[in-house]
Amino acid sequence: MEKLAFEDFTPGRRFALGPKTVSAEEIVEFATEFDPQPMHVDEEAGRASILGGLAASGWHTSAMLMRMMIDSYLLSSRSEGAPGIDIMEWRKPVLADDTLSGHSTVLEARPLRSRPGIGIAKFRHELSNQKGELVCSSENSIMFVMRGAPETAA
Amino acid sequence: MEKLAFEDFTPGRRFALGPKTVSAEEIVEFATEFDPQPMHVDEEAGRASILGGLAASGWHTSAMLMRMMIDSYLLSSRSEGAPGIDIMEWRKPVLADDTLSGHSTVLEARPLRSRPGIGIAKFRHELSNQKGELVCSSENSIMFVMRGAPETAA
Repeated sequence: MEKLAFEDFTPGRRFALGPKTVSAEEIVEFATEFDPQPMHVDEEAGRASILGGLAASGWHTSAMLMRMMIDSYLLSSRSEGAPGIDIMEWRKPVLADDTLSGHSTVLEARPLRSRPGIGIAKFRHELSNQKGELVCSSENSIMFVMRGAPETAA
Repeated sequence: MEKLAFEDFTPGRRFALGPKTVSAEEIVEFATEFDPQPMHVDEEAGRASILGGLAASGWHTSAMLMRMMIDSYLLSSRSEGAPGIDIMEWRKPVLADDTLSGHSTVLEARPLRSRPGIGIAKFRHELSNQKGELVCSSENSIMFVMRGAPETAA
């Protein structure tokens, strides 16, 4: 199948994300390495906290969002990577055994003047839990090779 | 030792981050789980790409930044967590065996009207590699309990 090119990321187009269920083990494993605050590594501390249970680090939720973007459209696209994240909001706790799903929506897209054959698309990403509560919203821009241009193996 | 409280995060105060050397194994392990694009999981693909070598996912760099914040000041503070990230810029590739270090600087701090006894401090975080090149810059806000107020075990 032909990979998605810059021209396919038209404003308004939506891509489904997830579902992804996160286990207590995954929460503790990520947090032990990157964010070992008590509510992210210990069930009891999580229940005693305002988060109400063992809760994923926001950075873990962000990484899971990335994986859902990869599986939905990025790995099957001519992506050239992203310069960063414009906004990342952790709106509700992501608790052990929560199931996340959502979508990425293209907000705008334009050719890059500095790199012929490449365009950049700005997305809004949203993830909700199994109760329909928005847990994470983010905006970032991703570069894609145009359909006729050579891929640079970025 | 007494934990750092909101009052300790005064504008202009700087906290050192790192050093942290990232191995090829760590890059591949993170990317395999969260961002399996070729330049993050395969040495050869990394060298062939515009990144010039096996390169850490930007989300991995972000998670390593968090770990450095944890070790520098967050775990020894009365942190109540963060609502998100305002800006995250991945400015240069982070390659296997790079050593990252930098600092967090307090930009502003104010009491939260909605939660008595809690204040919020806005930080700018910067990481450079062993050549002194800025690889990552970010801004985000973190909540802290005030010195006299009870900790809520967030």
